[in-house]
Amino acid sequence: MSTKTFAIIGMGRFGSSVAKALYEMGYDVMAIDSSEERIQEHIQYVTYAVQADSTDEKAMKELGIRNFDTVVVAIGADIHSSILTTLILRELGVKNITVKAQNERHGKVLYKVGADKVVFPERDMGNRVAHNLVSPNVLDFIELAEDYSVVEIVAGDRMDGKSLAELNIRAKFGFNVIAIKRGAEINIAPRAEDTILTDDILVVVGENSDLKRFEREIV
Amino acid sequence: MSTKTFAIIGMGRFGSSVAKALYEMGYDVMAIDSSEERIQEHIQYVTYAVQADSTDEKAMKELGIRNFDTVVVAIGADIHSSILTTLILRELGVKNITVKAQNERHGKVLYKVGADKVVFPERDMGNRVAHNLVSPNVLDFIELAEDYSVVEIVAGDRMDGKSLAELNIRAKFGFNVIAIKRGAEINIAPRAEDTILTDDILVVVGENSDLKRFEREIV
Ligand SMILES: Nc1ncnc2c1ncn2[C@@H]1O[C@H](COP(=O)(O)OP(=O)(O)OP(=O)(O)O)[C@@H](O)[C@H]1O
Ligand SMILES: Nc1ncnc2c1ncn2[C@@H]1O[C@H](COP(=O)(O)OP(=O)(O)OP(=O)(O)O)[C@@H](O)[C@H]1O
Ligand SMILES: [Ca+2]
Ligand SMILES: [Ca+2]
Ligand SMILES: [Ca+2]
Ligand SMILES: [Ca+2]
Repeated sequence: MSTKTFAIIGMGRFGSSVAKALYEMGYDVMAIDSSEERIQEHIQYVTYAVQADSTDEKAMKELGIRNFDTVVVAIGADIHSSILTTLILRELGVKNITVKAQNERHGKVLYKVGADKVVFPERDMGNRVAHNLVSPNVLDFIELAEDYSVVEIVAGDRMDGKSLAELNIRAKFGFNVIAIKRGAEINIAPRAEDTILTDDILVVVGENSDLKRFEREIV
Repeated sequence: MSTKTFAIIGMGRFGSSVAKALYEMGYDVMAIDSSEERIQEHIQYVTYAVQADSTDEKAMKELGIRNFDTVVVAIGADIHSSILTTLILRELGVKNITVKAQNERHGKVLYKVGADKVVFPERDMGNRVAHNLVSPNVLDFIELAEDYSVVEIVAGDRMDGKSLAELNIRAKFGFNVIAIKRGAEINIAPRAEDTILTDDILVVVGENSDLKRFEREIV
């Protein structure tokens, strides 16, 4: 496995967190920002940190930007610079360009000028947090389809001391408990006789309406 | 089930997305922003939209802010206002206060002045996007523990036409496939004789090292 290399342009909150996570996973990461202060702030979390303006085509060429496997453009507020940067990266032959967008319209333009992938961090996390406010027992979830999800849910008092067989989840709600976490221990093959305690974390997969009913009736 | 009410302060990208998602789920949502322009922009996606400065205690009192079940403070860049707002909400007796933080230090101060929950949208999405860049077949994931995850993964060519029995995932990798999605159809009780096609979406739960190996060897 050859190691992938990444360049991240824009060390705002999102860009710096992408850079840091990749660096911690062991990848080569170059951080680029037009602000010298931002570069100084993040220099210890990346392989190289370079002060440069990404809308300056010559500067990008000199940095050898096309040799990176993936370039992430994380300039959010300045829509014009983010679009121009994407265009330049595409023209310089960068193979994989991921760009942070401000809103839907910005996203559409980014795809037109050559982005391979557009992300909307604030919008996506806004949705996640909204779901969490409405269902505080749900710690995390994966949307599989419009009406199917995998849900990580905290067991409430009403489940305390009951076995999966007693709770009869499969028959009552139409899905199975696929994992149970208690403290540091994880059971990824729960059996009918396994007992649930308050604050255990359950992983279930099913139809949203069944999961909602489960939440209301027994969690 | 009585309907919960929410007030969202700050209609930036994150705040407006929380407001819109809650409103679309059928909840009563009041949007507050000091900018009249922002209020105009979001008025159609919420129940009420009010121009007010959240650091003005009297204004917050007059809006009856303490009657909302949950208040979300989504003022990101102006750290001072976000802290002061949290303090005021706590003093006015708001029961549930969720606040967007700029960084770790900001987050700690927010808990001290009375936040019930602090969120870091850009940091969290930065981590998610970093994982996705490294593992493009992984569409989404839930981290259950430091080394256990639920993963939504796209089946590659190497799995095409093979049954779960043939792939022998349980014996080779130590986990089960817990759901298979093909187009609009979802199978939440996969059996040994079920066949995988390229581009099917699999949901698996297991140890990260096993999941990585699975990704490398057969996806
Ligand atoms: N042309 C450019 N070249 C390089 N860096 C740039 C350029 N324009 C802006 N930046 C940098 O991009 C970073 C992120 O920009 P900005 O704060 O506007 O985005 P944001 O979407 O609000 O960020 P976040 O929400 O992730 O904190 C800043 O550090 C800024 O200095
Ligand atoms: N004291 C205040 N009272 C009410 N609204 C405020 C106050 N201070 C700031 N706001 C509003 O909060 C909103 C979000 O602020 P800002 O853009 O600084 O945050 P941000 O973290 O960059 O947002 P995002 O990344 O979610 O777009 C703005 O619309 C701003 O008008
Ligand atoms: Ca900003
Ligand atoms: Ca932001
Ligand atoms: Ca998904
Ligand atoms: Ca989690």
